[in-house]
Amino acid sequence: MRVDLNTDTGESFGRWKICDDESLLLYVSSANVACGAHAGDPLVMDSIAAACARHGVGIGAHPGFPDLQGFGRREMRMSPSEIESFMMYQIGALRAFAEHYGQALTHVKPHGSLYNMASRDEAVAEAVARGVARSTRPGENLVLVGLANSLMMDAAKKVGIPAASEGFCDRGYTSDGNLAPRGTPGALVTDVAQVARRALEMVTEGIVVALDGTRVSLRVDTICIHSDTPGALDIAVAVNSALTGAGVEITGVRKVIGVE
Amino acid sequence: MRVDLNTDTGESFGRWKICDDESLLLYVSSANVACGAHAGDPLVMDSIAAACARHGVGIGAHPGFPDLQGFGRREMRMSPSEIESFMMYQIGALRAFAEHYGQALTHVKPHGSLYNMASRDEAVAEAVARGVARSTRPGENLVLVGLANSLMMDAAKKVGIPAASEGFCDRGYTSDGNLAPRGTPGALVTDVAQVARRALEMVTEGIVVALDGTRVSLRVDTICIHSDTPGALDIAVAVNSALTGAGVEITGVRKVIGVE
Amino acid sequence: MRVDLNTDTGESFGRWKICDDESLLLYVSSANVACGAHAGDPLVMDSIAAACARHGVGIGAHPGFPDLQGFGRREMRMSPSEIESFMMYQIGALRAFAEHYGQALTHVKPHGSLYNMASRDEAVAEAVARGVARSTRPGENLVLVGLANSLMMDAAKKVGIPAASEGFCDRGYTSDGNLAPRGTPGALVTDVAQVARRALEMVTEGIVVALDGTRVSLRVDTICIHSDTPGALDIAVAVNSALTGAGVEITGVRKVIGVE
Amino acid sequence: MRVDLNTDTGESFGRWKICDDESLLLYVSSANVACGAHAGDPLVMDSIAAACARHGVGIGAHPGFPDLQGFGRREMRMSPSEIESFMMYQIGALRAFAEHYGQALTHVKPHGSLYNMASRDEAVAEAVARGVARSTRPGENLVLVGLANSLMMDAAKKVGIPAASEGFCDRGYTSDGNLAPRGTPGALVTDVAQVARRALEMVTEGIVVALDGTRVSLRVDTICIHSDTPGALDIAVAVNSALTGAGVEITGVRKVIGVE
Repeated sequence: MRVDLNTDTGESFGRWKICDDESLLLYVSSANVACGAHAGDPLVMDSIAAACARHGVGIGAHPGFPDLQGFGRREMRMSPSEIESFMMYQIGALRAFAEHYGQALTHVKPHGSLYNMASRDEAVAEAVARGVARSTRPGENLVLVGLANSLMMDAAKKVGIPAASEGFCDRGYTSDGNLAPRGTPGALVTDVAQVARRALEMVTEGIVVALDGTRVSLRVDTICIHSDTPGALDIAVAVNSALTGAGVEITGVRKVIGVE
Repeated sequence: MRVDLNTDTGESFGRWKICDDESLLLYVSSANVACGAHAGDPLVMDSIAAACARHGVGIGAHPGFPDLQGFGRREMRMSPSEIESFMMYQIGALRAFAEHYGQALTHVKPHGSLYNMASRDEAVAEAVARGVARSTRPGENLVLVGLANSLMMDAAKKVGIPAASEGFCDRGYTSDGNLAPRGTPGALVTDVAQVARRALEMVTEGIVVALDGTRVSLRVDTICIHSDTPGALDIAVAVNSALTGAGVEITGVRKVIGVE
Repeated sequence: MRVDLNTDTGESFGRWKICDDESLLLYVSSANVACGAHAGDPLVMDSIAAACARHGVGIGAHPGFPDLQGFGRREMRMSPSEIESFMMYQIGALRAFAEHYGQALTHVKPHGSLYNMASRDEAVAEAVARGVARSTRPGENLVLVGLANSLMMDAAKKVGIPAASEGFCDRGYTSDGNLAPRGTPGALVTDVAQVARRALEMVTEGIVVALDGTRVSLRVDTICIHSDTPGALDIAVAVNSALTGAGVEITGVRKVIGVE
Repeated sequence: MRVDLNTDTGESFGRWKICDDESLLLYVSSANVACGAHAGDPLVMDSIAAACARHGVGIGAHPGFPDLQGFGRREMRMSPSEIESFMMYQIGALRAFAEHYGQALTHVKPHGSLYNMASRDEAVAEAVARGVARSTRPGENLVLVGLANSLMMDAAKKVGIPAASEGFCDRGYTSDGNLAPRGTPGALVTDVAQVARRALEMVTEGIVVALDGTRVSLRVDTICIHSDTPGALDIAVAVNSALTGAGVEITGVRKVIGVE
């Protein structure tokens, strides 16, 4: 059994710092690096790419809407061709840093509202998938990481790019397999042991226990460790331990989905 | 005899359009494409890269200071490591578009104040050269285009990257081989025939006639056709004709300096 | 009979210029000045405010979403409190220039997607109205200019600020009094004489002839002259002449709605 | 005896937060609020203006270069008219929030590199002073806060606006009355008691003890409490106590310089 653990990182900007990125990198296999649109700047990207290379963590792009003040969390109605071009721009920018440190880009995970809109809006999902496809170099097999069972997964198939299904072990799910909206009771799971157990259930049993107690089928290739949750490092350590203790191999997303 | 003709392009931004980029591309061999910092945006870059591919024009990055409102023309005191990372970011972003259209990046020409500062400030010149070096893929031979005889040329040699010396056929030179400052009499040459003759003298005789009449030695690999000068297209046509009429081959900057 | 003629202006940014703002000012009574979020910058605002003062044109704020690359035309899901604060910021910034030239701000007209969203989304409409209310100085009577019959007019009433109903003489209307969507047949009226006649009908008869020929009741306090339409100046001249020729007084929006 | 204590504040941006602004406000008499160019955004400005009003702290503008990523700390070569217009923009934007909470703006203190350049470059100093002058309402008496003995003080006099001389109790001075450059030994004073004693000496004796032990004459109207120094709150408390314990009145900058 294999799974990828991913975390969002590089979300500082100029003088403004967010979290201790580097220690989290010890416990994950993939990093989603902000690319300067919603967060991150060239200095941050340079330094994070170096850290990922040092720790053997897969470097992926984390493109977002061009909205620093809103941190890419506000919906923006960009046209499909805008989304494609903006993704290519951000993916290309990050690749320069990864390559300088001898690394290939492994994946692309949209950020914030772009991720959410691509999960449920077909036109956005396809624009995101095409943005990845158009950014993929020959032989590169850039993987689109998206919400399990969402329209992003369908779009990747349609466009013909590899995709990885993402699960959230610190988020509540409804019985239809969707994430419970933030702000509703149970939307966030904060107990570290429970978070770790949920990660294990996703990987070893292929299920998640929904808010109403239902066991919902959920096949995931990669699990997100939120870097900005209080206690993020504790969660990363606990999830990592629980998985490796159960014999699960934590490894890069390419290997998990078999496109290495 | 060979020379490259280059022009700055892709300097529109969002709704704001600058000039008829595409027709100029018929008369030059290299395009310096703005990369989103001083001008350009992902949609513009996408479209210009496609146009360059269609016309067989070499695609180069035209990185500038992150200052849209000032169009990269205001000096900014960025540290050398900031300059390096900001160049890598912009070069990488543009490369994604070039590669999508089957083209390799050929060169990098800094824009505006970054170009000017790199011409006369050793620390900036070396940061620019390192920015190019760190962005160069194995086998890519990315060429730094800089002012002939300036510190940028020395920095390229020191850092170990190929460089091309640029001349300006529509600008006046002082007798020591420097550009006459804008705003001084004779700083701009506007007569089309004269501009074409100056281009020809640079290439075939290796000289420029300075403002005081001195014939100054000036060896150039590439000549800039300013795209935002009134009559830019006429100048491009005239320079192109004068050169080809004299048996000069107009070709990409890599071939001119022998690193193809 | 009285009506205000308004035009959007100051939509240049840095090196990027849009249209000959100043000549249009001779034919309108109110200018909606971009405030740096979707377009405009402090130099542009300074110069436009001076021009308005010279020509006796009322200076109004034209706040938009913070999206230069998208020119404020993309929907952004900002929260009501974000909209309020962003409007206060932009209104306050413009007021500094107006006051320096001895002018009071007269009105606020939201730009682009903010205008459209405020026309049909109650929460956005109320946020816009509150943004104006919170920016109004004692005795200032800042007028909200919004689409006639839209939710913005209701919101102004609810919040307790003066409002002016805007009509578009160069746009087609549907028989229910709404603007025909751009891109549908008849959405744009380009014949100058027809545009002028429609303006006159709005003011003197209180109607607009809809696309299906219906005469729809439409009471307007101010009519928009689009500055970025080809032939904008011709339209402004024709509308101005038609109205004054019919004895309509073209005057500031405050006087038209009686809050001077 | 009277002195103003000022602190820079409102330097968060979007999701990125800086320090606990509000508790510092209990110990100072003036706040310099970032205006969205180098830091701050409309939501932050709105909330800080409200906090200042609650605590009876004078609200001043803290305009900076338009460089978020560099936090206004990089030199930018803006022309004098650019500096003037950019200052008017930022001052006007902040005033909208101050007035909404019933407060008048009291002062303007340039930020970062703009402050430093204005201290030693006559053209920049005069542009800053004119920016304040052009932003001043009739009867408003907006005060320019600048480095004691610097060119900014001369420029204010020349332009005819009130000015307040600022001292830094946590910075080392050279024997000619200038700040010791950051990075040189003794440039930062970190011992809280020593910082408080230096503040007291500035106010009660009109001197500062330079790095070489010389007692240098330094008349200050306002003392800066850096909000981003580790232990900023302790320093604010200690300086406030030392001054009030010695019978010094801590009060707004207008009252200190007699233009209330």
